[in-house]
Amino acid sequence: MNLNITLLPGDGIGPEVLAQAVKCLRAVEETFNHNFSYIEASIGAVAMDQTGSPLPEETLEICKASDAILFGTIGTLKYDDNPYAKVRPEQGLLQLRKELNLFSSIRPVKIFPTLLEKSPLKKEIILGTDFVIYRELTGGIYFGEKKLSADGTVASDLCEYSEKEISRITHLAFKAAKNRMQKLTVVDKANVLETSRLWRRVVSKIGESYPEVALEFLLADNAAMQIMLNPKQFDVILTDNLFGDILSDQSSAICGSKGLLPSASIGNDYAMFEPFHGSFTQAKGKNIANPIASILSAVMLLNHFGLNEEAQAIIVAVDKALRKNISTKDINPSSTYGTSQVGDFISQNIIDSE
Amino acid sequence: MNLNITLLPGDGIGPEVLAQAVKCLRAVEETFNHNFSYIEASIGAVAMDQTGSPLPEETLEICKASDAILFGTIGTLKYDDNPYAKVRPEQGLLQLRKELNLFSSIRPVKIFPTLLEKSPLKKEIILGTDFVIYRELTGGIYFGEKKLSADGTVASDLCEYSEKEISRITHLAFKAAKNRMQKLTVVDKANVLETSRLWRRVVSKIGESYPEVALEFLLADNAAMQIMLNPKQFDVILTDNLFGDILSDQSSAICGSKGLLPSASIGNDYAMFEPFHGSFTQAKGKNIANPIASILSAVMLLNHFGLNEEAQAIIVAVDKALRKNISTKDINPSSTYGTSQVGDFISQNIIDSE
Ligand SMILES: [Mg+2]
Ligand SMILES: [Mg+2]
Repeated sequence: MNLNITLLPGDGIGPEVLAQAVKCLRAVEETFNHNFSYIEASIGAVAMDQTGSPLPEETLEICKASDAILFGTIGTLKYDDNPYAKVRPEQGLLQLRKELNLFSSIRPVKIFPTLLEKSPLKKEIILGTDFVIYRELTGGIYFGEKKLSADGTVASDLCEYSEKEISRITHLAFKAAKNRMQKLTVVDKANVLETSRLWRRVVSKIGESYPEVALEFLLADNAAMQIMLNPKQFDVILTDNLFGDILSDQSSAICGSKGLLPSASIGNDYAMFEPFHGSFTQAKGKNIANPIASILSAVMLLNHFGLNEEAQAIIVAVDKALRKNISTKDINPSSTYGTSQVGDFISQNIIDSE
Repeated sequence: MNLNITLLPGDGIGPEVLAQAVKCLRAVEETFNHNFSYIEASIGAVAMDQTGSPLPEETLEICKASDAILFGTIGTLKYDDNPYAKVRPEQGLLQLRKELNLFSSIRPVKIFPTLLEKSPLKKEIILGTDFVIYRELTGGIYFGEKKLSADGTVASDLCEYSEKEISRITHLAFKAAKNRMQKLTVVDKANVLETSRLWRRVVSKIGESYPEVALEFLLADNAAMQIMLNPKQFDVILTDNLFGDILSDQSSAICGSKGLLPSASIGNDYAMFEPFHGSFTQAKGKNIANPIASILSAVMLLNHFGLNEEAQAIIVAVDKALRKNISTKDINPSSTYGTSQVGDFISQNIIDSE
């Protein structure tokens, strides 16, 4: 397969962890006879220093011309210390998501067997957990009309959803469930919210076209309990922007370490893949950042294009590294392996099992 | 102290668990020389069968004339099986909260040492956890204007808060923190919501009158992570209706069993105490329901009136019962103790330690 991949290293540890993901993609190209081309563009604080904008026009054009985007991390201490800065690095990412209409955030929740002890949950609770959250990313209360009364004593936020906004992500979630364990759990508060009731109607109607997928509805408060009590019951969770924000962060805590989780932002035309963690500026350039979340974001990229064997080959290599304790200090405090050594090991162990 | 307490047994296991809580209150009266009087009134399905209304006028009058309300549970299978019934037992409870203006839900999260193994979290994570959630109960998005477009394709819910709604619960939360570990954590999404920003301003201003309380703000998604990763960092959590709904249910999962958690609904003029669990109709009259949540709701009642030694005496007796394995089958599957035997033991072991 030929793929044009835009690389957006961004700030902090972004460039060094992204470089390890690219090592793995190059190994996949070689092992499985693909031809990926890479073009790098700037975003975030580094772009602001170069051009004044956190999302230069050139970067946007490059992204639009590519098949997929592999993103590093964004933000620097310089701007973190100044919450009132008018232009902030993170705006580059928000603006990019908006320009590319990336309406769905995808967050897989699965823990490597070697890392079970990192979870705050007991082993018997977490063992076998493997689900993915589809969170609507561009609608709902975060984007609705905000008001503050003239005297400043009454504030409001409007949560609004249209059938169109719901149906496009619902199709993505049903398709994912169809290719996984055929179960879709919609999380809402339909007992009290009109938007939730619209979600239920739209999802139920669309569900008729996916008869092989078992559809269930779960109230958000109960979902937050169930994620702690019995996370292995879930396959695909579909939910709105606010509930998805809370539940996907809660779910990532299941895995104990943030350094291991990837995420994707998907639209109808574009797709972007990135680690869940932040830019960890203090570690920049020190060769200590854990590259696994970034490497797993490349795995999501491969899965997105149906390259599932290739994706699995990387996962097997990551698992091998973890079993051999070839990991950064956040996983194994006595480790002498740095970011690039971990990337080297994983990329060198990507083999075609056929 | 003289107290007039209204008893609302309600449906399902409500009457039998409430009876054990009353046994404990009577033991407290005797041991500590108080004089509580009890008057029983009907609510829920049982009231509907008797009067047609889930909250008879007489019940409301009795509640308004008392110092506190001790509530059982509400709901029966008959109505659970018919989600379209126009009048439902649960409406009795919602209407009562509204009539009495109970704007604050209080949910303590603490686990008995003997029950640590019931938690899905690892022992070292949960050990020492002791916090309480103050959830705003009568405002926010659950009560805001709901709209559905004429063609049914666009729905909305309005989240609105006034300074007055925020400030009355904020004072309750600060007072609680002052009497506990002097830490108040406000949970919101101030990075995206106008209502959250109003909460921050109002709480910050009120905080100036409670200089002994350390005030911190936490985004709701991060809070959901932190409750799993490090629940012992919290003392008092204050939050709005929606976030409180999700986080208090998530927090109750920390304790593993729902049969052990009490809650309170407090206003400026009235206070009601109840177990967190539901009416568990299948167990009704079988003497198998766990009475501890109901007994602990009586503990919250005593604390509410400053009877802290008395409250502690019940907790010590509950702890003794658990240590001696005098508990119902949900806690100890091989137990031969029923609801009333557990209530007898606990009430007979309430002693004045002075
Ligand atoms: Mg979040
Ligand atoms: Mg709830």
